Amino acid sequence: MAEYIAPLQDIQFILHDILNVERLYQTLGKSDLSRDVIDSILEEGGKYASGVVAPLNRNGDEQGAQFQDGHVTTPDGFVDAYRQFCENGWASMTGPEEYDGQGLPLSVAAPFHEMLMSANLSFRVYSGLTEGAVLALKMHGSEALKGQYLAQLVSGHWAGTMCLTEPQAGTDLALLKTKAQPQADGSFTLTGTKIFISGGEQDMSENIIHLVLARLPDAPQGVRGISLFLVPKLLPDDQGNPGDANQLSCGSIEHKMGIKGAATCVMNFDGAKGWLIGEANKGLACMFTMMNDARFQVGLQGIGIAEMAYQGGIAYAKERLQSRSLSGPKNPDLPADPILVQPDVRRMLLTQRALVEGSRMLAYDLACQIDIEHLATDEATRQQAAQRVALLIPIIKAFGTEMSMEVTNLGVQIYGGHGYIREWGMEQLVRDGRITQLYEGTNGIQALDLVRRKLIADKGAALTHLISEIRAWCQTHGNQPDLQAVSVLNKGFPMVDDKAREWLELSEQIIARAADNPEVIGAVCHDYLYYSSYILLAYYWLKMAVTATERLAAQPESRDFYIAKQDTAAFYIERILPRTLMHRAVILAEPDTLLSLSEQQLVR
Amino acid sequence: MAEYIAPLQDIQFILHDILNVERLYQTLGKSDLSRDVIDSILEEGGKYASGVVAPLNRNGDEQGAQFQDGHVTTPDGFVDAYRQFCENGWASMTGPEEYDGQGLPLSVAAPFHEMLMSANLSFRVYSGLTEGAVLALKMHGSEALKGQYLAQLVSGHWAGTMCLTEPQAGTDLALLKTKAQPQADGSFTLTGTKIFISGGEQDMSENIIHLVLARLPDAPQGVRGISLFLVPKLLPDDQGNPGDANQLSCGSIEHKMGIKGAATCVMNFDGAKGWLIGEANKGLACMFTMMNDARFQVGLQGIGIAEMAYQGGIAYAKERLQSRSLSGPKNPDLPADPILVQPDVRRMLLTQRALVEGSRMLAYDLACQIDIEHLATDEATRQQAAQRVALLIPIIKAFGTEMSMEVTNLGVQIYGGHGYIREWGMEQLVRDGRITQLYEGTNGIQALDLVRRKLIADKGAALTHLISEIRAWCQTHGNQPDLQAVSVLNKGFPMVDDKAREWLELSEQIIARAADNPEVIGAVCHDYLYYSSYILLAYYWLKMAVTATERLAAQPESRDFYIAKQDTAAFYIERILPRTLMHRAVILAEPDTLLSLSEQQLVR
Repeated sequence: MAEYIAPLQDIQFILHDILNVERLYQTLGKSDLSRDVIDSILEEGGKYASGVVAPLNRNGDEQGAQFQDGHVTTPDGFVDAYRQFCENGWASMTGPEEYDGQGLPLSVAAPFHEMLMSANLSFRVYSGLTEGAVLALKMHGSEALKGQYLAQLVSGHWAGTMCLTEPQAGTDLALLKTKAQPQADGSFTLTGTKIFISGGEQDMSENIIHLVLARLPDAPQGVRGISLFLVPKLLPDDQGNPGDANQLSCGSIEHKMGIKGAATCVMNFDGAKGWLIGEANKGLACMFTMMNDARFQVGLQGIGIAEMAYQGGIAYAKERLQSRSLSGPKNPDLPADPILVQPDVRRMLLTQRALVEGSRMLAYDLACQIDIEHLATDEATRQQAAQRVALLIPIIKAFGTEMSMEVTNLGVQIYGGHGYIREWGMEQLVRDGRITQLYEGTNGIQALDLVRRKLIADKGAALTHLISEIRAWCQTHGNQPDLQAVSVLNKGFPMVDDKAREWLELSEQIIARAADNPEVIGAVCHDYLYYSSYILLAYYWLKMAVTATERLAAQPESRDFYIAKQDTAAFYIERILPRTLMHRAVILAEPDTLLSLSEQQLVR
Repeated sequence: MAEYIAPLQDIQFILHDILNVERLYQTLGKSDLSRDVIDSILEEGGKYASGVVAPLNRNGDEQGAQFQDGHVTTPDGFVDAYRQFCENGWASMTGPEEYDGQGLPLSVAAPFHEMLMSANLSFRVYSGLTEGAVLALKMHGSEALKGQYLAQLVSGHWAGTMCLTEPQAGTDLALLKTKAQPQADGSFTLTGTKIFISGGEQDMSENIIHLVLARLPDAPQGVRGISLFLVPKLLPDDQGNPGDANQLSCGSIEHKMGIKGAATCVMNFDGAKGWLIGEANKGLACMFTMMNDARFQVGLQGIGIAEMAYQGGIAYAKERLQSRSLSGPKNPDLPADPILVQPDVRRMLLTQRALVEGSRMLAYDLACQIDIEHLATDEATRQQAAQRVALLIPIIKAFGTEMSMEVTNLGVQIYGGHGYIREWGMEQLVRDGRITQLYEGTNGIQALDLVRRKLIADKGAALTHLISEIRAWCQTHGNQPDLQAVSVLNKGFPMVDDKAREWLELSEQIIARAADNPEVIGAVCHDYLYYSSYILLAYYWLKMAVTATERLAAQPESRDFYIAKQDTAAFYIERILPRTLMHRAVILAEPDTLLSLSEQQLVR
């Protein structure tokens, strides 16, 4: 089984050399965050992920989370690793400083989170939603609730969950039935059943704080009648310590394809005491604060899992001796060549690498935009960042996880039959990662969100802005003779410029077509999301290649690193970007071929 | 969990209406095989698959094959279902009549096999290799060996295995080390370890006959020094009954991602007695007889698993009520519409259907060619069929299984979060099906085989023949006014004709480029295989649409069935065929983008 090695150099290349976060943080009032400070956080984070969390991953899959009599036992080592997670301050990285958090930007925390996800996705699932709960509570909670809960959540001593789904209400939250009855003391009693609750019960934190969507008695039907409640597992006593058990319980945990170490719970609320967060009937808006963070995190999960699949693939490909190179033995003294010499194996490895690193660049750039949205002093700047974030959230969630499925399956494929055997660890990545295309809104829902809410509702404004940025960048850099001399750039600048132009044109067509026929939205959304993503990644790959070209001269000792960036960019442009041809052709097709069949004809 | 329903109407549409197998069998000396006889075999087969084998599938996954002290216990019910498999003649369908087989054509057996694979892939794995062993033994074995083993293998009372892989020798059989020492009595003693042996040990058959690749003491190095041996688990006694145990044992079974009901064994041969099959050092050629059959079967496995994923997807999509249609409620009396009304859900369902049914058409057409190769009286006809079979075997194996991975993952996706939960059965299809891209030669090896041995070695002859056939068919049918009136056909005939022309052009380019640089083979093979497959399926979909158009007039009571064929063809042409654009662009790219990085740069 391949060991996880934190890809620090790659992370730092993006954060420092391309995004220049040190300078960004100065503008955001975080000038204490020097490059050295950031790097030492990342280094320590890498040690924790690879040294403490990764070794628990295989056993976590075999042993799984166990359920008995309402209690969940997490796999061996999770409790202690979580204790270190809290003690060493990993839980509180992004927490607000007024509640003992470190107030670090997401763009510092995200690379650490990605490392955790590479190391052990199940373990990360337990802590992942607490950060979203902190955000929702901080933005929408009353001062009393914040005072009582925030510091404990920030430290990780208490964990948060997100209770949305019910058996009949998944994608369609309008259908949810859980009821909240107002009480004389200003609290509410909640009754109903929630399913698919990650970490709804566990043995790692001292308390569990559920954020629950429910309906008030007089609530309007549909999504405008949903409110958000805070419902603790243990009710805080007068000192604020976990006290009496609330009227809620874990009924069972699911038997799943993967992330077996993470307990996915059925939660029964039987008149549980809770408190309203934000305004009545505005719960969905409050929950969206949390959901956007969760969707970003899920995209990052895709990247983390995919990174591990790449590391596994490369480790095997250089060791496994089998057959000879097509152009004659490369390794004549040994009985066979490493499979790494095979072009088709390189195709798989480079596809992994191009997708993982391109998506990472997208994720970290987006994390910076989220930081700007939250921290910029200037309202207009915040607004602009918010618009960009809204546009890119469905893309990072869906693309980051869809590419992950491809990359993890390539990981298995590189191992041949050994990829199918559990002890090698590659098939676990496929199984663990497979949840990411499903939860926090399936990728189909992300695609609908992109076209309906982020493109059409916005009349293409956010997209037009992004595309202008891409085209201006391509044109400016395309005129620099020293960059033109690099073949991938020489070819790439006009190509990506033109693709971006085509992207806008196609987007405008979609807006016009959807105005005539709303079914167009559903008919194009899948292909539109991936079409857009592939162009976006081409832009990011050119950015990486430009920076690599600039650094190459300054740091000849890191030549291999920078050459690899340039050549992977060339690989991306030549061999991945053509996927847009297929997506474009399908976007241009009429919805009829999807809609013509009646239910009876379709069912067969 | 969706129940398996044998798709008899779809199977019969292909076999009778398109391939007209009844007429074909008359030319092959099988005139007793009337349409009625064939249909009653398929109906009974469907009942056995859905009624006996399918119900064992979920438990088989949970319980798995168990190993203790060298013995394997198969999951509950497998032993009895296998007894019925033998007693009711399912084992002996294709077996030679002179050894008590039924001598049925593969094109009758394959649909039944596909049904078994849909119902329970693990169960099918145990019997699947016996048929290949029969073929290898029949074609290459001595009369003595045939007399002693064939009838027992044909009846299924004894099962066959295929022992190729060793820890250091997977793709590269040249590296295998198992030794065979000649004995005075004409037998051999075999010593070595084989891994990944499907059904190497089990509790269902009375004996297990291993076909083992090994080296004689004086054998040349490499693949020209490999011989094939028959090594029984129990040595037949004087009456031909299973007698003394041979010197071999199952050391362990693998813990796998899927097909957990199928025991994948480590087999230790410790001076086991065996007999040579065919000539010394010509073992690989003998094994290829078996391997071609196995590769066809694995392609069929992909189709079988994918069919079940489609059935699961459609069953859920029509029942699951969630959200409203984009163009307004379709189901105003209920709280939500079935997700089947969503264009993006239909995209997933129709992709499944178009890929499954198109691949099935390819598989059954290929099965007919295999029948012609084996049964035609005319040598030239046999030769021509053999050439076509050689060309299409890597395509059915790789494409049939690659599309299967896509289709099973779509099945999970249609279920949303429920797809990830084991009890729904959808994720098992992903896990079970994932082996098919790996075993019997990874899909990368199939792609290399296609370009190197089936395209280049043959100087494009087989391909040119196939493409001429496609183009002539498109041109002939494209001139018929009644067919032109059907929009998909009107559009499809010239489009597929042109794609076929482009396919030949691209193939000739590849042959030329590879002559200059052998790395081109590895650089293009993956994309070339899928590019070719998508064009081939377009041709088959047009064939189905033409026949559906013709039948529509004759059988108006089956209107829904035929309209569905026409509309799925239209879906394929508009929304799947554009994938060729991407593959073509990548084929045209130079190998440099794959080869430029040094090992050091690639490893990171």
